Amino acid sequence: MSVSDSLRPVPRTRLHEQVVERLREHVESAGLRSGDRLPSERDLAERLGVSRASIKQAILVLEVQGLVEIRHGGGTYLRTDTLTAEPVSTLVERQRRLPDVLDAREAMESKLAELAALRRTEQDLAEIDSALEAMRAEIAEGLLGEEGDRRFHAAVTASAHSALLAEFMSGIAERIAESRRESLQQPDRPSQSLTQHTRIAEAIRAQDTQAAREAMRAHLVTVSRVRLLSWTPEDE
Amino acid sequence: MSVSDSLRPVPRTRLHEQVVERLREHVESAGLRSGDRLPSERDLAERLGVSRASIKQAILVLEVQGLVEIRHGGGTYLRTDTLTAEPVSTLVERQRRLPDVLDAREAMESKLAELAALRRTEQDLAEIDSALEAMRAEIAEGLLGEEGDRRFHAAVTASAHSALLAEFMSGIAERIAESRRESLQQPDRPSQSLTQHTRIAEAIRAQDTQAAREAMRAHLVTVSRVRLLSWTPEDE
Repeated sequence: MSVSDSLRPVPRTRLHEQVVERLREHVESAGLRSGDRLPSERDLAERLGVSRASIKQAILVLEVQGLVEIRHGGGTYLRTDTLTAEPVSTLVERQRRLPDVLDAREAMESKLAELAALRRTEQDLAEIDSALEAMRAEIAEGLLGEEGDRRFHAAVTASAHSALLAEFMSGIAERIAESRRESLQQPDRPSQSLTQHTRIAEAIRAQDTQAAREAMRAHLVTVSRVRLLSWTPEDE
Repeated sequence: MSVSDSLRPVPRTRLHEQVVERLREHVESAGLRSGDRLPSERDLAERLGVSRASIKQAILVLEVQGLVEIRHGGGTYLRTDTLTAEPVSTLVERQRRLPDVLDAREAMESKLAELAALRRTEQDLAEIDSALEAMRAEIAEGLLGEEGDRRFHAAVTASAHSALLAEFMSGIAERIAESRRESLQQPDRPSQSLTQHTRIAEAIRAQDTQAAREAMRAHLVTVSRVRLLSWTPEDE
């Protein structure tokens, strides 16, 4: 290691990141499961010897990842069986990438839905229906429905028969997958998305271009409502 | 040259392509200029010893390239000083590429106009105005206004401050330029486009997202109305 390397900035673990790690350990050692309640903020602050502000920040970091739910009227509840949280820097990166991909999705997918209503074949409709069915089955199993969701949007894209727009969509497939996961982990979002998909499919089947475009736009407005975007990472 | 090479298909020059070449020579030798009238179809058919159908096809090939104008009530008039026509195969290729790029432009640019109305800075507005001015000056000189048109759409894209959509736009810049040229060579199209650009600019200045989106969409519907798309290349 060179001298300049050894004099690099000391990595600083933020207080709320340490709190997140302690919470993860607590969930594991206490055997807490999805649906269980975490100790109160006041209790956590006392036991960990940190300010309630730091506890609040830790809980927000967990909430924007869909790992806990802060219920109206108080109480923080686990939404998963483990608290495997991402580092704040990853969250910040993801937050920075998201708006651009949501803008691009709205631009392209509204047009794709319109063109799908105009050009869909019977085979296209069959694939759309099959994707809806797959998403419904995933949700019934308690999953987020990510794979069915991906297949639905891919089927609409294919139904539009527009090579260039399809190429753009596949060029940002990974970032779209990220926006999908972000959206589907919002409470009650999977079944809401399924309902909206069904509406889009009906408009495409009815060859109603305007209804298809508007249903897709409305859906993507919902998709873009994710907790991560309103989260403000705070320094301590 | 190998044996297999020498046995390649004999290139077949279609009759109407030979007619186009004869017309080009006629314009040159007779010193015809933009605005001058070509001989009548009947006259050409007799002098060249071909059917009137072949003359009609040749004239259409020139018309879809904006080289001649077929006036209502009869008469074919030169729109340029020379008849440098593209081969039919190039036209067919261009016709095949056009619909996809027009779909992609409508999808992306409608959203870009909406975002521009939301996010434009004073500097963005200055560049939009400067592009309008450049297009106006080009048209006043009797040009198509291609460069001002390109700058206008680039300024709207920049005003949207959306890196991903801007990247898509620059990824198909050449194909967009092709669609622009195609559109601007339609009769009276440059001044019509300038008027529509002005409307888009006003909505962006007024921060009216819906008006900006709709003005851009209406503009791109106009852009997509090109003679080439309704042309049917016919075999003889």
